[in-house]
Amino acid sequence: MRITLAQLNFRIGDFEGNLSLMQDAIKKALDEKSDLICFSELATCGYPPRDFLEFKDFIKRSMDVVQILCDLSEKIAIVVGAPTMNPLLEGKDLHNSAFFLAEGKIQHITHKALLPNYDIFDEYRYFEPSTEFKLVHFKDKKIALTICEDIWNLGNNNPMYKICPLDYVIDQKPDFILNLSASPFNFNQAEERLHVIKSNVLQYKIPMFYVNNFGAQTDVLFDGGSVVMDPNGVCFDEMPYFESCIRTYDLDEVLKGGRSSEQAKVKVDLIYRALVMGIKEYFSKLGFTKAILGLSGGIDSALTAVLAADALGPENVMGLLMPSGFSSQGSIDDATELAKNLGISYEIIPIESTFETYKNTLKPWFDGTKEDVTEENIQARIRGMILMAFSNKFKYILLNTTNKSEMAVGYGTLYGDLCGGLAVLADVYKTEVYQLAEYVNRGKIRIPLNSIQKPPSAELRPGQKDSDSLPDYSILDPILYNYIENKKGPDEIIEMGFEKAIVLKSLKLVNQSEFKRYQAPPVLRVSSKAFGQGRRLPIEGKYLC
Amino acid sequence: MRITLAQLNFRIGDFEGNLSLMQDAIKKALDEKSDLICFSELATCGYPPRDFLEFKDFIKRSMDVVQILCDLSEKIAIVVGAPTMNPLLEGKDLHNSAFFLAEGKIQHITHKALLPNYDIFDEYRYFEPSTEFKLVHFKDKKIALTICEDIWNLGNNNPMYKICPLDYVIDQKPDFILNLSASPFNFNQAEERLHVIKSNVLQYKIPMFYVNNFGAQTDVLFDGGSVVMDPNGVCFDEMPYFESCIRTYDLDEVLKGGRSSEQAKVKVDLIYRALVMGIKEYFSKLGFTKAILGLSGGIDSALTAVLAADALGPENVMGLLMPSGFSSQGSIDDATELAKNLGISYEIIPIESTFETYKNTLKPWFDGTKEDVTEENIQARIRGMILMAFSNKFKYILLNTTNKSEMAVGYGTLYGDLCGGLAVLADVYKTEVYQLAEYVNRGKIRIPLNSIQKPPSAELRPGQKDSDSLPDYSILDPILYNYIENKKGPDEIIEMGFEKAIVLKSLKLVNQSEFKRYQAPPVLRVSSKAFGQGRRLPIEGKYLC
Repeated sequence: MRITLAQLNFRIGDFEGNLSLMQDAIKKALDEKSDLICFSELATCGYPPRDFLEFKDFIKRSMDVVQILCDLSEKIAIVVGAPTMNPLLEGKDLHNSAFFLAEGKIQHITHKALLPNYDIFDEYRYFEPSTEFKLVHFKDKKIALTICEDIWNLGNNNPMYKICPLDYVIDQKPDFILNLSASPFNFNQAEERLHVIKSNVLQYKIPMFYVNNFGAQTDVLFDGGSVVMDPNGVCFDEMPYFESCIRTYDLDEVLKGGRSSEQAKVKVDLIYRALVMGIKEYFSKLGFTKAILGLSGGIDSALTAVLAADALGPENVMGLLMPSGFSSQGSIDDATELAKNLGISYEIIPIESTFETYKNTLKPWFDGTKEDVTEENIQARIRGMILMAFSNKFKYILLNTTNKSEMAVGYGTLYGDLCGGLAVLADVYKTEVYQLAEYVNRGKIRIPLNSIQKPPSAELRPGQKDSDSLPDYSILDPILYNYIENKKGPDEIIEMGFEKAIVLKSLKLVNQSEFKRYQAPPVLRVSSKAFGQGRRLPIEGKYLC
Repeated sequence: MRITLAQLNFRIGDFEGNLSLMQDAIKKALDEKSDLICFSELATCGYPPRDFLEFKDFIKRSMDVVQILCDLSEKIAIVVGAPTMNPLLEGKDLHNSAFFLAEGKIQHITHKALLPNYDIFDEYRYFEPSTEFKLVHFKDKKIALTICEDIWNLGNNNPMYKICPLDYVIDQKPDFILNLSASPFNFNQAEERLHVIKSNVLQYKIPMFYVNNFGAQTDVLFDGGSVVMDPNGVCFDEMPYFESCIRTYDLDEVLKGGRSSEQAKVKVDLIYRALVMGIKEYFSKLGFTKAILGLSGGIDSALTAVLAADALGPENVMGLLMPSGFSSQGSIDDATELAKNLGISYEIIPIESTFETYKNTLKPWFDGTKEDVTEENIQARIRGMILMAFSNKFKYILLNTTNKSEMAVGYGTLYGDLCGGLAVLADVYKTEVYQLAEYVNRGKIRIPLNSIQKPPSAELRPGQKDSDSLPDYSILDPILYNYIENKKGPDEIIEMGFEKAIVLKSLKLVNQSEFKRYQAPPVLRVSSKAFGQGRRLPIEGKYLC
């Protein structure tokens, strides 16, 4: 039996486009004399469709795609993920399902049993879990058809679910496991995915064909990396990350094994590629080609510019240098050098006169008050406004350059440097920004060394440094990581050896900044806990504040 | 037996403050010779605590409160909601629990069985549902102790759950139902709540004591309205909406019945009171007293000013009139009249010179282009920046004045009129804004009639009217309502008699504006489907676009 896995990039609600991708893949699979082609979870409608699932019209359009695929299944069996209506009156209205289509008919429907409902996942919001488990009989084989999380309750120390769906069918001796996934990227995920697949394969002693989707849905990135694993737990094939891929495998060869093919998993390289894909996808799915961003001369905007140039081509990236009276000549030089290194266009637009106009406008009311964060914010907001004016006038998308450390402690101006359609680095801690900067500079210097080496500063008042208001990033970042990613409380973090006052201040800053993050742009998710829809906290909470 | 219901305003994570509120209530209950005092769902930590629940330190602090209450339960039994750790390795880490404390000991713990996971609710994200149901024995009575949603699977046509927890204990003949709730407001909720309570009481033929919390957690409003219902399904008492209330009831009297006490439920009045409470709460929980907003002379900003003045006192509200060259004298007059009617302070800050400065700054790049939405946005953003400058300098919170119709179709400028800490009217359709304006004008004219009667305009270009780009609100609003609240598809809405082109254009505008709403302020939720955390949609979806 020959089995094709189609790792494709679906768009949410683009039923025609998704169908067309699948039709092309089916043609290729037929050319490769495949018996069975397998698409990923909710492939008809794209993943995650979120509250569109609550529209009957949306479900109907998805079922229309299933029907067309069904008609195409005369010569090849097709496995495809799609939402289905729950026929029972009680329970949630939908199932997250996989259709097994063959000979022009629906041969089998499997529903997902384990519904992820954590971090960015909301599947219990829409779906009723399956309580029935059956094998699919196809030709002379028995297939254990599963959907994404259904295989994830093995190999964990703290299982989130009470059952393992495969336990219910293993006695009937399936020949292999087929898994349709939409498993999002984080820099540890490919490693964990292989661990989970291996745990299943070793437990049940049959091979697994695992197909993931690839592409981005704004903040949520899918890396692909579909896997075929032989019955001994060796990775027979791992499809490339961050690209479409259609490959056909011979079941007998997989059963025989003896082939090991796995990609390197280097954190900084994975993050770099994920961010480039995230930018590329955001623009292409929204129908834009050109990015604009503010270049401060600092490392964050420099790295964002590199990523944008690599994603969209330097000819599609515009940097604006917007010096104020507090900007150093060094910063202007660094930003200019960067733009030249990358071959992106840039313009210098001083904001001094606009800043003066604001101050004059506000003078009657502000007279006698001290200059404070208000005036700093005005400068940041003037820059945001100029960038947005270019964006509006010339159809650029503004890229936000805030890093995760700043986003965490609220070191940024709402409607100022927090503007943007997409926050490229807001899931990358400042210490990781340095690692990425080194990485993109590895062949030749693209980010000027001065941008990397000088002490970070917002340059919003004379002589300002980040370290005036924040702990050193080498101390702040691990505190943030332990709080945000590891959910440690203050006592636990202090016990690790961090200074009490710094820990308490840092966590307080995080919790007090929730109102800023509420209005921040979507954040490309590369860690296991990014700001945005995967981290939900009250604005008015008094915890640790 | 005497039973006290304590309808209180808890703050998320404010363990000390919440405990202190409960201690005061216990004193009052003891004075009233009560046997049992009952607090609402998750009262120790506030509802909804959201991802704070993922912190073990947070759960520990909540348990510390339970322990202190336990020590206080020598003279009176205490029922209180709190999260507990799930002792089993498998399943979610927590339960949403109710403690029954008496004689200084934990006598009983009930876990919630039906976990809402729709709209603003995410309970499956954190909690493992209960599968065990037992009565509480206290003095000579048997109590069926339930938590919020546990009673909501009765009286629905499309039940979301597969069980009714009370079915498991009714054979043991409980004397009454006790329900701890955190049931958020919408303008139909008090009505529905009584319907659900009545369905339970009539089904099980025993009375119910239902305690809700009151207060706001930013966007999510809790109206209180706790209920005591006699065994015949007559409302023995309904506590006031939008305020704290502690009342003690004699069980025998409730069993006897013969008393009917229910409040009027008038949509416009409920919305008005909810919005006033929402503003008041946002400011008090964040420790602010003063609001600022832009006054355009239009009805939305006028209504927002009225609500702010009623919530915070006119002395704490500042309106800024920021006319441009496109502002009519009529608008300035209307805004001035409004400010005088309300007794709020106001200032006039023309934005013409700042607008010119921007245009001059951008001239080298914009020369030869047509004036378009870019220049309109610049004006809106200058106003946003001036308001934010006042906010930063003088510790005002900026109130956003966008209505739901505008927010739906994206008729507003990101970082411009979409600025603000809180969107007061963004769950109120324009046609409902008119109803509210009439309502607040019922005693005496507060909003100038001209603001109500003139055709809506953003005044961002000469002679601009909302109707240039949008269908009339009397047509747009029902289309939006059927799409957003009722989740009808385009075909269904067209079948209702709306013009096809208008329907398709309106729904497309809604779906294309998701990127703006992603960065919009939190929206006071008064309907069954508000923008914000209760409505989750992809930014890049292609559905109906």
